[in-house]
Amino acid sequence: MTFPRNAWYVACTPDELADKPLGRQICGERLVLYRTSQGGEVAALEDFCPHRGAPLSLGRVCEGQLVCGYHGLVMGNDGKTVSMPGQRVQAFPAIRAFPVLERYGFVWVWPGDPALASADRLPSLPWAESPEWAYGGGLYHIGCDYRLMVDNLMDLTHETYVHATSIGQKEIDEAPCETKVLEGEVTTSRFMSNIQAPPFWQMALRMNGLPADQPVDRWQVCHFTPPSHVLIEVGVALAGRGGLQAPAECKASAIVVDFITPETESSIWYFWGMARHFKPHDASLTTQIREGQGRIFAEDREMLERQQRNLAEHPERRLLKLNIDSGGVHSRRLIDKCIAAEASTQVGTQVGTPASAQAAMAGAAAAASEAGVPAA
Amino acid sequence: MTFPRNAWYVACTPDELADKPLGRQICGERLVLYRTSQGGEVAALEDFCPHRGAPLSLGRVCEGQLVCGYHGLVMGNDGKTVSMPGQRVQAFPAIRAFPVLERYGFVWVWPGDPALASADRLPSLPWAESPEWAYGGGLYHIGCDYRLMVDNLMDLTHETYVHATSIGQKEIDEAPCETKVLEGEVTTSRFMSNIQAPPFWQMALRMNGLPADQPVDRWQVCHFTPPSHVLIEVGVALAGRGGLQAPAECKASAIVVDFITPETESSIWYFWGMARHFKPHDASLTTQIREGQGRIFAEDREMLERQQRNLAEHPERRLLKLNIDSGGVHSRRLIDKCIAAEASTQVGTQVGTPASAQAAMAGAAAAASEAGVPAA
Amino acid sequence: MTFPRNAWYVACTPDELADKPLGRQICGERLVLYRTSQGGEVAALEDFCPHRGAPLSLGRVCEGQLVCGYHGLVMGNDGKTVSMPGQRVQAFPAIRAFPVLERYGFVWVWPGDPALASADRLPSLPWAESPEWAYGGGLYHIGCDYRLMVDNLMDLTHETYVHATSIGQKEIDEAPCETKVLEGEVTTSRFMSNIQAPPFWQMALRMNGLPADQPVDRWQVCHFTPPSHVLIEVGVALAGRGGLQAPAECKASAIVVDFITPETESSIWYFWGMARHFKPHDASLTTQIREGQGRIFAEDREMLERQQRNLAEHPERRLLKLNIDSGGVHSRRLIDKCIAAEASTQVGTQVGTPASAQAAMAGAAAAASEAGVPAA
Repeated sequence: MTFPRNAWYVACTPDELADKPLGRQICGERLVLYRTSQGGEVAALEDFCPHRGAPLSLGRVCEGQLVCGYHGLVMGNDGKTVSMPGQRVQAFPAIRAFPVLERYGFVWVWPGDPALASADRLPSLPWAESPEWAYGGGLYHIGCDYRLMVDNLMDLTHETYVHATSIGQKEIDEAPCETKVLEGEVTTSRFMSNIQAPPFWQMALRMNGLPADQPVDRWQVCHFTPPSHVLIEVGVALAGRGGLQAPAECKASAIVVDFITPETESSIWYFWGMARHFKPHDASLTTQIREGQGRIFAEDREMLERQQRNLAEHPERRLLKLNIDSGGVHSRRLIDKCIAAEASTQVGTQVGTPASAQAAMAGAAAAASEAGVPAA
Repeated sequence: MTFPRNAWYVACTPDELADKPLGRQICGERLVLYRTSQGGEVAALEDFCPHRGAPLSLGRVCEGQLVCGYHGLVMGNDGKTVSMPGQRVQAFPAIRAFPVLERYGFVWVWPGDPALASADRLPSLPWAESPEWAYGGGLYHIGCDYRLMVDNLMDLTHETYVHATSIGQKEIDEAPCETKVLEGEVTTSRFMSNIQAPPFWQMALRMNGLPADQPVDRWQVCHFTPPSHVLIEVGVALAGRGGLQAPAECKASAIVVDFITPETESSIWYFWGMARHFKPHDASLTTQIREGQGRIFAEDREMLERQQRNLAEHPERRLLKLNIDSGGVHSRRLIDKCIAAEASTQVGTQVGTPASAQAAMAGAAAAASEAGVPAA
Repeated sequence: MTFPRNAWYVACTPDELADKPLGRQICGERLVLYRTSQGGEVAALEDFCPHRGAPLSLGRVCEGQLVCGYHGLVMGNDGKTVSMPGQRVQAFPAIRAFPVLERYGFVWVWPGDPALASADRLPSLPWAESPEWAYGGGLYHIGCDYRLMVDNLMDLTHETYVHATSIGQKEIDEAPCETKVLEGEVTTSRFMSNIQAPPFWQMALRMNGLPADQPVDRWQVCHFTPPSHVLIEVGVALAGRGGLQAPAECKASAIVVDFITPETESSIWYFWGMARHFKPHDASLTTQIREGQGRIFAEDREMLERQQRNLAEHPERRLLKLNIDSGGVHSRRLIDKCIAAEASTQVGTQVGTPASAQAAMAGAAAAASEAGVPAA
């Protein structure tokens, strides 16, 4: 397996659950996500009705429970069938229920061992709960291994080339980066002093009431944490005022938010956004930044999808690992450690439907078959 | 193989042959169907020109025979080449010709052993030849195993959920069904007494000059016959008048017609329609019903295609077989019996081009090669 | 392998390189083609950046060299990395550079052993460099084995059926063809005397100031040369004036140009066009002919793609080889000879990245890895 499973992944945003259940494949598993009541809790189950294999995501929520849209089986939020018209359901096999949490404006799911799921293991995102910050973002589906997106975000020299007209500038290439591996986190930092701000940051300075044509200090501090979260402190301050540490009134600072959820081994759900630490109540600014960022991040898609195709066609080729790549290299090592740890503690047996549940399902099916089908 | 072959399947409707030959894959075989003359007989051949493998369905009919659209080979309706400009064709290998019949408003084809094909084995469809009945229908291509559609039609509890706004109602779930296995036929019956008619049947009552707001008795009697035909007697009668047996003037009755033709192991040509036993001469009513039924039956497509995907991803899972499923379960047993009977009598050797024909083709090719290619 | 590699193939037309690099798969290899400067030479490389596998075709040309659009690696036109911001690149593995030539209005590439590439082996196309001739053409992508297109063009009896309304006529079928195998060339000739010109040639006669309603002599002389070039001398002359040898003032003559470049084993880039030997300065005539030819040649696409599918589904079937097929049969023999000759001299080892380059790449990657990634 190529992804850690005992981890919280962003499954969706709350607006995706507003009207009806959502079917989404995450880490290779097909899930149905739904809100059990108007404004109520979110549940996540296998998207597979134990009756005839219909996708539960085509059903609807009725009195707090998911009703299969094919023959009306009522599924409990724990994966056990509650009822079905005219049937005794005690022997029905259970389907998997996935730990799920709603926090920070996202719905998080835990594809691995439910016994290990705990809210403590959610990342800490203080900006998401502070009135001094505003957030806007979006979702892209991209056909690449999730680690190619981690690499992308942990090496921002690509901005100079992929995003030349918005956030790229040659000084990114010229400023060396420094990668540090901490306990469970990799950071790659780059600081540029006394430079001209690129177009995106000129806009941010102007929106923040600062001059856009004066030299600035610019910073990019990328933080990777497993399984595949990348948060990047970014910003510019008027030159010589302390950069990242400059007082709020002479800088524009933000966090680029990247939650990368593997769909399959070669595709991702990419939740991207920006949390900004200025003018948090300006909704039109939020919209403007989201649209700009959406355009910029769309520029990565073709590159990543064609990189994926190239690598798939040449699995024997080993890629170069230069100093600019060290953020990605060390992030992948952390990922590999997580996967290895899961394998060694046999939590990997949680992958897919457990063997015991399978046996139960087969047995139940046989029993139900005998019970349900009248003699000819 | 997953389908009986010694059986009549609906290949197309006559209007599909109006202008030019039709290429259609049936039970895994690519066929060309064409009418040998204006208003004349239909022929069915392998869609493969023995000259260079071009699809004959891109050709045209000329003087009662199919002319290949690539190099003008004239193919006989028996699969033997008749002529080709400038060539002697005696040694050309034959292609398969399929028994074909036109009856009841459909073109039927027999993919199996031609020696066993007989008009006697067509289903009997008296409604299709009676002036007291009118028929309207359509064709859907759906990406699912044909047996999932048989299951669907032999368990109409799905109407309550999939077709909630038209023909579904909770009384379907509440009324038990009864499945009977007869010689070569499975029937599943459900009778609902003294209920409110759902929207589709209210419309039918109104069109038939009956009140739509009074209690009715409703019936659904599904008849499965191999290989994959499902005819469903459906209707409503004013309550207490005898239901299915009520006199014509106090009911609206019809037959839902479902001819399910496998294209491949995971896709079907679904010929659906409704034969009604009231107002047969009202062409606009025929159109109205066909359009309504078309919308209703389109609701099944996504469900079946995603069910197919779910099952393909979990081939190890055994599905529940409840009492409501017994119609489908017994229909599948009949199908399995047909397949087993074909296998045991070796009619299976007819599948694909017979070995002898292959050998002939290779020999002819070699001979033609020697004859046709001048020395260098 | 199913294509000769030590041969010049048309890779693209110059207009395809006007603005930016072009990514194109040829003989299974993904290439990037680009002009090293405005109006300068064309270069062709593997479309694979040695840094992270990004497609170089998403990059841009800067000061005569290709700059990777992902992280700015500067690639030399010989496949060796020139520089990269902040990196020492001496140990970077090279990628393949392909011999490339621009001539006759086409860009030609040599997918095989570079040591054998020589301009002498380009076909000789005097019409492409003579002011007495005009050329117009286009490019189609077709999903078929390139040899099916060779067959198509070496047997023009298909015109009677596929192109019945433009260049087809029954006299093509009636006139026998003659195939000759010369040193490295196959020709198939057909001459028709004293016939009515078909619509396309009537137009050509009119445009050339000749009567369109008088009997003509028509000729078709197909020339195949490896790897997959077909040039067809075509035309009509007023009857009895010498046909192909008639004086220019009483004929309309042209060359149908077909350069067939395999993309994969089952798809091609088909460069088609017509060089005409009359009214060479009439640009609107060029446009009119190109549009007409484009419509005619588009008629072959469905036939060839479905023939390809039919043959792929029946790999065991041997096709007939009639006398009309002898042009294609002998062309395929020439192709097979080229492939066998390449295999016997081991130039086949050039296919894909050479083993030595692979080893170098792996070694360099390891070295770079050690060098580039700081200790954690």
